[in-house]
Amino acid sequence: MNTEADLKIPSGFHFSSLQSGIHGDRLDTAIIYADSPCRWSGVFTKNRVKAHCVQRNSHLLDNGKPVRAIIANSGNANACTGSIGSEKNREMAHASSKVLDCDEEEVLTASTGVIGVQLPIEKIREGLKTLPPPEASAEAALSAAKAIMTTDTRVKAVSRTFSIADGEYTICGIAKGSGMIHPNMGTMLSFLCTDAPVSKSLLNSSLKTVVDETFNMISVDGDTSTNDMVLLLSSAVHQECCDIAAFREALYEVCEALAIAIASDGEGASKLIECNVQGASSIKNARLLAKSVIGSNLVKCAFFGEDANWGRVLAAMGYSGADFASDGVKITFTNADHSKSLNMMANGSPQAFSEELASSILGESSIIIHIDLQDGSSSAKAWGCDLSYDYVKINGDYRT
Amino acid sequence: MNTEADLKIPSGFHFSSLQSGIHGDRLDTAIIYADSPCRWSGVFTKNRVKAHCVQRNSHLLDNGKPVRAIIANSGNANACTGSIGSEKNREMAHASSKVLDCDEEEVLTASTGVIGVQLPIEKIREGLKTLPPPEASAEAALSAAKAIMTTDTRVKAVSRTFSIADGEYTICGIAKGSGMIHPNMGTMLSFLCTDAPVSKSLLNSSLKTVVDETFNMISVDGDTSTNDMVLLLSSAVHQECCDIAAFREALYEVCEALAIAIASDGEGASKLIECNVQGASSIKNARLLAKSVIGSNLVKCAFFGEDANWGRVLAAMGYSGADFASDGVKITFTNADHSKSLNMMANGSPQAFSEELASSILGESSIIIHIDLQDGSSSAKAWGCDLSYDYVKINGDYRT
Repeated sequence: MNTEADLKIPSGFHFSSLQSGIHGDRLDTAIIYADSPCRWSGVFTKNRVKAHCVQRNSHLLDNGKPVRAIIANSGNANACTGSIGSEKNREMAHASSKVLDCDEEEVLTASTGVIGVQLPIEKIREGLKTLPPPEASAEAALSAAKAIMTTDTRVKAVSRTFSIADGEYTICGIAKGSGMIHPNMGTMLSFLCTDAPVSKSLLNSSLKTVVDETFNMISVDGDTSTNDMVLLLSSAVHQECCDIAAFREALYEVCEALAIAIASDGEGASKLIECNVQGASSIKNARLLAKSVIGSNLVKCAFFGEDANWGRVLAAMGYSGADFASDGVKITFTNADHSKSLNMMANGSPQAFSEELASSILGESSIIIHIDLQDGSSSAKAWGCDLSYDYVKINGDYRT
Repeated sequence: MNTEADLKIPSGFHFSSLQSGIHGDRLDTAIIYADSPCRWSGVFTKNRVKAHCVQRNSHLLDNGKPVRAIIANSGNANACTGSIGSEKNREMAHASSKVLDCDEEEVLTASTGVIGVQLPIEKIREGLKTLPPPEASAEAALSAAKAIMTTDTRVKAVSRTFSIADGEYTICGIAKGSGMIHPNMGTMLSFLCTDAPVSKSLLNSSLKTVVDETFNMISVDGDTSTNDMVLLLSSAVHQECCDIAAFREALYEVCEALAIAIASDGEGASKLIECNVQGASSIKNARLLAKSVIGSNLVKCAFFGEDANWGRVLAAMGYSGADFASDGVKITFTNADHSKSLNMMANGSPQAFSEELASSILGESSIIIHIDLQDGSSSAKAWGCDLSYDYVKINGDYRT
């Protein structure tokens, strides 16, 4: 796995970014450009209220034609802005297609920021006139990753190189949070590029499977955005893939790393919390349990306060909707490398534990909640963060 | 409606309370006692992990026998405490039945407080030896209401007197929050007593209907407790009811007042937020929408910050699971008496509004979000509160 320091760019992809002035004094618009038309897939928010970019990209995905570019802006979500907003979203694609010399329908769009305010499209149009030529460099990709940040405190970019019979390929992804699930300011976006030769149907099925296990298993605050999307582009349209397993493994690792990066950089977060459920009777139950624990405000507050309150973990399991018997439950807290371990509940009964060891584990910046249901062989992981004063502060005065 | 100052007690009911020492230096145990066996009904938490008191009361309700008393303690939830905890819960009923001179199975139990710690039943048993004789007075009822408080900052007690053909009757209720939905510390409990002659089946159906519209329409933090319960006792077992509508109306008013009292006294709350949904295509959709808006962390933070962020309201509607068309939506914020009104969205499009008027409305301690879907004739109301620094503070260090 490669991160910022040694990011690899898959062949055929180029990145650029600019400051149009719609998001203060910082980069606010990113461009990803491919030499040739790309097979692609996308996964979009399930929020019934969908931003114009989500609606347009979904429509283009249904049409099934290859694409050449993505333009993404921060500072304005262009959601709930009526037919005027829809037209401005189309203009964003049109303006970039002119600069990049491709068709308007070959450009995907993405926006993140405040809801319900019209996009100042003229600023983006003006900005595009001075767009630096897209480059196939790590520096350019990291600048693009920076341009889509909102309340993110860290750039999120990961790549992984993998081998299949006929050669070596790369997947590179950038993302922004600061939550899977935020409307208004924290929309989750991720753009993934690969030079691996994968058919369109396998791109679709791989992306859906992997997103369900990674980006759909993180939570910052339970609020699903109107603008969430994950896009995956493959530049290798003229070849056929021979080893889908290696591709899927690499895709999983890239998405998992980006998902964890989003969770740990959740708004106001001081700690990354992983919930690792094992021994469940089904994958569905394991996922419901892991996400319910990670999503509980009370669990999140307890971790912020470094309080070993395992009762809140069990209560969150209880209202998850999952089917399980509480008398088999084992709950253990560990630090990230498992060098410290605290068993809090076994066979459904509370266990005496050392408050000193509890403080030592809970004082770390990354904590794992292990839950064993002893009821089957299914497992799931989910990632979240603590709920802090800063989350309230950040979200108490965002719009103004 | 009568509140603390002029609370009326239905004939046949008596209250007492004591300080057993399980909840610091304060009252921690409440007794409600009836002269004669009562018809009764109950509604319990849907959390799969149920406290021993919830399990035992559910079982007694299925048995269908009349009851004479309720004993409720704060400071310990007696949940997730295994077979030892189950036995201690039974002992709590047994000890009070001896003091009150009735059968063990005529005593209902309720507990609220920390999960997973064994109940110090010997303290309650000792305390009961010095129990002041139960009294049919407002003072005694208010002391009982105080004894079940946890993080509540205000006593919650309401009564209403109503007439049916053959006479005048009273419903009196006490409750504690600080949320419908908290495990561990904020369990919601409410105990309702009436001298109205209502059959057991009508008690059941009335309580279920009314709880769905009142206690089930509040949210503080989305966390459903292991110990939640609402109990309704009627002391008039030897008569038949003639006007169920008047009884239901009074029951609704008492439950609504207590539910609003819980929401406005939610942990850390500085504001009561009501969401009033109208013009929905079904009651189910109206309730889903109202509860989703009230439950959104981002909406709650925006109100704490006094930020007129209607986009978060629409986003929360979008992920509610309700079926609606966003292009008909009208969103208006008003203060409690509707003297100030701010239209933020009409026919699905953002409306220009005065930030000065917005600040004036959002600066009040009680705010109503009116949503009109223009899609039918169903409506629903939900109540919640803002999400403040104090919520995080209260829940960051509760156990220790």
